[in-house]
Amino acid sequence: MLDDFVRQAVKNIKDYTPGGSSPGAIKLASNENPFGPSPKALEAISKAAPRLHVYPDQKSIELREALAKKLKLSEDNIIIGNGSDEIMQLASATFLRPGEEVIIPAHTFSLYETFTHLFDGRPVIVDLKDNEQELEAMAQAITPKTKMIFLCNPHNPTGTMISKAKLEAFLSRVPKNVLVIIDEAYVEFVDSKDFPDTLPLVKERENILVLRTFSKYYGLAGLRIGYGIASPELIKYMFRVKPPFNVNRLAQAGALAALEDDLFLEKTYKNNIEQRNFLYQELDKLGLEYEKTQSNFIFMEVKQSADEIFLQMLKAGIIIRPLTSFGLPYAIRVSIGTREQNERFIQALTQLLK
Amino acid sequence: MLDDFVRQAVKNIKDYTPGGSSPGAIKLASNENPFGPSPKALEAISKAAPRLHVYPDQKSIELREALAKKLKLSEDNIIIGNGSDEIMQLASATFLRPGEEVIIPAHTFSLYETFTHLFDGRPVIVDLKDNEQELEAMAQAITPKTKMIFLCNPHNPTGTMISKAKLEAFLSRVPKNVLVIIDEAYVEFVDSKDFPDTLPLVKERENILVLRTFSKYYGLAGLRIGYGIASPELIKYMFRVKPPFNVNRLAQAGALAALEDDLFLEKTYKNNIEQRNFLYQELDKLGLEYEKTQSNFIFMEVKQSADEIFLQMLKAGIIIRPLTSFGLPYAIRVSIGTREQNERFIQALTQLLK
Repeated sequence: MLDDFVRQAVKNIKDYTPGGSSPGAIKLASNENPFGPSPKALEAISKAAPRLHVYPDQKSIELREALAKKLKLSEDNIIIGNGSDEIMQLASATFLRPGEEVIIPAHTFSLYETFTHLFDGRPVIVDLKDNEQELEAMAQAITPKTKMIFLCNPHNPTGTMISKAKLEAFLSRVPKNVLVIIDEAYVEFVDSKDFPDTLPLVKERENILVLRTFSKYYGLAGLRIGYGIASPELIKYMFRVKPPFNVNRLAQAGALAALEDDLFLEKTYKNNIEQRNFLYQELDKLGLEYEKTQSNFIFMEVKQSADEIFLQMLKAGIIIRPLTSFGLPYAIRVSIGTREQNERFIQALTQLLK
Repeated sequence: MLDDFVRQAVKNIKDYTPGGSSPGAIKLASNENPFGPSPKALEAISKAAPRLHVYPDQKSIELREALAKKLKLSEDNIIIGNGSDEIMQLASATFLRPGEEVIIPAHTFSLYETFTHLFDGRPVIVDLKDNEQELEAMAQAITPKTKMIFLCNPHNPTGTMISKAKLEAFLSRVPKNVLVIIDEAYVEFVDSKDFPDTLPLVKERENILVLRTFSKYYGLAGLRIGYGIASPELIKYMFRVKPPFNVNRLAQAGALAALEDDLFLEKTYKNNIEQRNFLYQELDKLGLEYEKTQSNFIFMEVKQSADEIFLQMLKAGIIIRPLTSFGLPYAIRVSIGTREQNERFIQALTQLLK
């Protein structure tokens, strides 16, 4: 009966499939930090907690100032969200009109499409090529109705990247009245010299919005905090749509402290590079096909049911991400863990593939 | 230049005016708990913090089960939000189509109108009568285009209530295809025997959504957590629109513990009744007009510029809420504090009105 009562958009939205969890198992499914949360963030949270009866700062001013300083931008370039998800939602709420087209790579983070539907936009899905976002095809997909383009760099779930040269060539083909949203959730793990620095681009162009998060590198997925970087005018409009108290007090305090947690961040980065190389070597031994990654996860083609692999690995106490919900039923995504976690993963996988 | 680029809806949204703040001042502007956050919530937060690197439970299952038990409902009747604000937004996102009408009382919490604009609805504002929501006029405002009706009970900022008899008579006049959203942010402070119990109504009717929050009574405004109560079918649709990780881990853990913090909650309730009566008595002495309240704040008609009163009180170290942004430039709203805070407020006000 209620069916007539809800918006058409709601019927178009697919359920989000989260990474699995199971008590006691090693979780390599959601690209969380294997070392836990930033210790400096935990300290700051503990200090901030006694003021929890007071509403949070509506504009996250302290955090925006600290980010501006770190990124060599102005705080007017920055907006903080309840996770970077919320910034995606705000962008759609601010700019997307019914029927306008949103270009989205295939097999990617599902919320780009969800928020497009939510504001009655039309998703235009462009296939990957060799597990990479194909910018040539994406540029060709632009029509007079195109309003936004999502890029994910490095790409979730394949771990591949768009190079600086490719991004710049692409941007030169995007009309000024099309907003390019570049999701850089994993940017802190990148080690390629060809990776684009998008921050200067934000100063040059009014049609770019860069998304970043404290969920991965800073180990704060449970706090819900991310941010958007864009021209002051774009940010100003998004602020009008932002609910006043969207970012909780502990998230603001924790993120601020985590920014300065050099020891923890260095350990996180170093482990990721070392363990990535360890996993490459072990996967090579197993003869498994995988993508070189710029992220804290590795994409593997298992050539058999990923859901079955998921279940078998779960029995061995390890949670990986089958990519069925990404439209890739024969591939898995595995977060890079500590050496011990990775060894246990390889051990279990070896048993399974025997 | 960007002006053409944003949705019309964005231009209709007014900026939210938060309560003021000033270091060291007594804050009686945002109806926060004068005893701070629930101590049991703080304990639970401290225990939950080491797992902050892990994404929160998408469905807030533990908290929904505990609420269901406490409220004698099923967890299928409950959805948790990043503050009850988010539930309002989810309701609009789920149900409101462009051009549909939303009936809203005048001089009320501003976000009802904000979220109506956000989904291209048309706000229909119905005047208060003697500082009360006038249900007769609201019923008459219903047209074939009406989709939602917001009620605020007890009413923010006047503190008045809609009685059980009036609400029931009103609901019998509302068509089944109109959703009535009853914001009960202050329900825990009510002491009138005529106040309606809306929970049985949710079981009988599919067109009611009740909103509650942990911000006020539980002292957790800084954590951002509130909830909606409705029929399972309505909740199910709202879940489809809800971003997956909308409620942070510490909010889920803190709220769960606060629910059982009987000592703190009793102290909060008792202080509010006692101090309300103390303030009535002192305001009577001053000859100031005010409304009897069912909330943790008192509405006062100051017959002079509320903004001026705000500034003068701020100089005396006390922050009150001028109701100019509510369209009431000659009225103020003052949160009920501890005895000491209230005495200082009365002292400063007495000086000012001399």
